Amino acid sequence: MVIMGIDPGLATMGFGVIKLEKGVYSVLDYGIVSTPKEDRLPVRLAKLEKGVETLVRTFSPDKLAIEELFFSKNITTGIPVAEARGVILLTAAKLLGSEVYEYTPNQIKMAITGYGAADKKQMQLMVRSLLRLKDVPRPDDAADALAVALCLGQVGAMSGSFRIG
Amino acid sequence: MVIMGIDPGLATMGFGVIKLEKGVYSVLDYGIVSTPKEDRLPVRLAKLEKGVETLVRTFSPDKLAIEELFFSKNITTGIPVAEARGVILLTAAKLLGSEVYEYTPNQIKMAITGYGAADKKQMQLMVRSLLRLKDVPRPDDAADALAVALCLGQVGAMSGSFRIG
Repeated sequence: MVIMGIDPGLATMGFGVIKLEKGVYSVLDYGIVSTPKEDRLPVRLAKLEKGVETLVRTFSPDKLAIEELFFSKNITTGIPVAEARGVILLTAAKLLGSEVYEYTPNQIKMAITGYGAADKKQMQLMVRSLLRLKDVPRPDDAADALAVALCLGQVGAMSGSFRIG
Repeated sequence: MVIMGIDPGLATMGFGVIKLEKGVYSVLDYGIVSTPKEDRLPVRLAKLEKGVETLVRTFSPDKLAIEELFFSKNITTGIPVAEARGVILLTAAKLLGSEVYEYTPNQIKMAITGYGAADKKQMQLMVRSLLRLKDVPRPDDAADALAVALCLGQVGAMSGSFRIG
């Protein structure tokens, strides 16, 4: 089973693609899609939409997991990120329908480390270990996206199924 | 010139369509697109996308104005609204390109009443007056959308032009 994970963002969207076979994970690819600050918001949103479309068509994932946003404070910087996430989520759902799943940061931490308040370092070491990588994946957004994909693999697809349209 | 205004939202998106001819405004239509809370987020986002597409194809506006979000506090309820706005903005920009404009709540109040801190009541009375309506338009989201459209008419399209793609 091929699982794509997405860490949503406007300036930088992380993606990670993993394969789960007989209980063993392997990495197919990971990286980021970035949009320049100089571009106007709709142009950046269009670039993210295209990025998701290209990724899904390239890797044909069976399932896709996308992190939910959580802002403890700074709403002002949060608005554009949420606007980007709306576009990313809809684009993924139009291509993969009910095979798109959403997880909160806590659910992801819990699934990867067994501890809902795990810090970034702990998370990255577990991602490296679960995927049997030599180094922690870079940049952070890509490592976060691999963690979302692993979360889906770990908890299975029990929750969060839906149909579009 | 036909101008469409949009008051973005997830549960309720307001729209208003006005005509500006020789300095005189008239109303073509106004109303809301609503999405049920029971539906999952991607399904609701898809409904808003379809709503914007249908509205733009129905009225073929020359220009479209969409309000920017501003949250003083409650970020938690703000996230889904911002996710919806991202989809609405991108959908409009894909259809109308550089004829999509964004205005802040303050800019809209300023353009309609000459006072950036005008309250809802003052705004609605000015919308009624500028559009020569017998009553204040209902619901509020539709009146807000008419205000955004009027803002574009009032300030002209000096600011905020952009190209997509």
